[in-house]
Amino acid sequence: MEESKRVMSYRPEIKVFDATIRDGGLVNNFEFTDEFIKDLYKANVKAGVDYMEFGYKASKDMFDVNKFGKWKFCNEDDIRAIVGDNDTNLKISVMADVGRCDYKKDIVDRKDSAIDMVRVATYINTMPTAIEMIEDAKSKGYETTCNIMAISNAKESDIDVALEMLGKSGVDAIYIVDSYGSIYPEQMRNLADKYLAIGKEYGKEIGIHAHNNQNLAFANTIESVSRGVNFLDATVCSMGRGAGNCAMELLLGFLKNPKYNILPILKFVENHMTKLKEDGVVWGYDIQYLLTGRLNQHPSAAIDFTKEKRIDYAEFYQYLLDRE
Amino acid sequence: MEESKRVMSYRPEIKVFDATIRDGGLVNNFEFTDEFIKDLYKANVKAGVDYMEFGYKASKDMFDVNKFGKWKFCNEDDIRAIVGDNDTNLKISVMADVGRCDYKKDIVDRKDSAIDMVRVATYINTMPTAIEMIEDAKSKGYETTCNIMAISNAKESDIDVALEMLGKSGVDAIYIVDSYGSIYPEQMRNLADKYLAIGKEYGKEIGIHAHNNQNLAFANTIESVSRGVNFLDATVCSMGRGAGNCAMELLLGFLKNPKYNILPILKFVENHMTKLKEDGVVWGYDIQYLLTGRLNQHPSAAIDFTKEKRIDYAEFYQYLLDRE
Repeated sequence: MEESKRVMSYRPEIKVFDATIRDGGLVNNFEFTDEFIKDLYKANVKAGVDYMEFGYKASKDMFDVNKFGKWKFCNEDDIRAIVGDNDTNLKISVMADVGRCDYKKDIVDRKDSAIDMVRVATYINTMPTAIEMIEDAKSKGYETTCNIMAISNAKESDIDVALEMLGKSGVDAIYIVDSYGSIYPEQMRNLADKYLAIGKEYGKEIGIHAHNNQNLAFANTIESVSRGVNFLDATVCSMGRGAGNCAMELLLGFLKNPKYNILPILKFVENHMTKLKEDGVVWGYDIQYLLTGRLNQHPSAAIDFTKEKRIDYAEFYQYLLDRE
Repeated sequence: MEESKRVMSYRPEIKVFDATIRDGGLVNNFEFTDEFIKDLYKANVKAGVDYMEFGYKASKDMFDVNKFGKWKFCNEDDIRAIVGDNDTNLKISVMADVGRCDYKKDIVDRKDSAIDMVRVATYINTMPTAIEMIEDAKSKGYETTCNIMAISNAKESDIDVALEMLGKSGVDAIYIVDSYGSIYPEQMRNLADKYLAIGKEYGKEIGIHAHNNQNLAFANTIESVSRGVNFLDATVCSMGRGAGNCAMELLLGFLKNPKYNILPILKFVENHMTKLKEDGVVWGYDIQYLLTGRLNQHPSAAIDFTKEKRIDYAEFYQYLLDRE
């Protein structure tokens, strides 16, 4: 009965995050047309998506603005040109990477911003800086999340410490991030339970950002939903680095809240995503990603393998094994 | 600890079934080259795969042998030409469809056959014929399974009756078959528990044959493993009707029994599967299959949509909704 209840009904606390530009931008250097971004914004509004992430707040001292599309920097003016006053139910988020963001300068007060939420991405060894960034954003009036990356390579005891630190911080939500796409659903449920226990203790929401290296991004997302995870990242057609993410169309097909509507996303796919693929932008599940995911390795070697259009999977696997 | 134990160790009872020719043959009309079949056989032997399904035992009265590749019929001579005396640990299976097989005539005694196992595929309303076919194969000396198809559209009470009938039959294993790729992992675990209860009561193994319409074939397969399902169908590169099946390379990457080796399968992919795709043979996860899977509909409309190279997903979804 519990299973039927969960599959048939819905939790209003669930929020869907569209990360297509932000994670997808890693594939095409953030070079989206304005039409693409405008249509994606409209599609998300119509589809009932809760948050749309426009990109990164990357440091202009560290990254040359002429070498990337504008969504690596997410200037207020650029966001405003798309959303105007954003008089919709869709909230706007940006991601700020620890060590790659001049947050004190580049993130202005929320009252002067089109942005509603700042999501801080960190590795587990830079938690103090992450928390400083979270408190800075919080004090400026933003909703905040902390996305601890690459946890499949972190010690469990270190994750426990990081979660305690975040529990005591002002952060609103903590994300489980499967950067290498190496986590199986059974392990994901256990991770979800660990994060949810901290969430319950300190009043934080828990989120999930999955990668599709082993074709498990959607499964891991809905499995963590079944445990109580409420903040769900997805991207249209799974667009994202390497094997990509949980597909928005799969996720909206699964969720039962009547406010979600898959049709505007399907229209967007027809109008934009098919062309993107035809233009040679490459992402998505493939055997090379399964191999790095399976070995819990960073997907960079698989991304290179893809760029070189190699198909010598066996030799590639031997190479991955030899460097373990 | 239970989770760690399961993920780190293995059950020797697990058997991997390669259904590439049988389910993949539905995509290319069973027109594989002999070299493909020979190399797949060798790869399966080297990879430690337990069973290889060569195709169907289709009735030659009902199907014109000139209109299909030979693996729709699986003549003894054709199998022998590949496997010789099959002096290996790999067992050979064929599938016999209820109502499409002259099993009394076409399935000879096992002592005169290269085949080790007959898998009987049935819909839930033809169980008596399925059981007659199972008993016939059993009496001829074969291992047998029963694969009840399209259970996502069957009444739970009817499934219970079918399982009781099979429990009391001579069948060796009963398969959970997610024909429409519509079952979510949480539901799959419950189905696995239902089948496993009958398996325990009557001494039958339980198997799973998943489809990838919602990108859940691998997830559903390993989730049912976690409940105790031991007979696992997979196909190289997911090759199979529509969205295809659980990928062999994903499954072998997951299983921890040291007898399994993913490398021969990776080599086979390099040498054969890439060419097959380049030659225009089309299968695999795509949005049209997610839509039929999500609605628990037969994938035939999505297969037509694929053949027509359509991308008007929104209109297609409306069409599917209108005919519900």
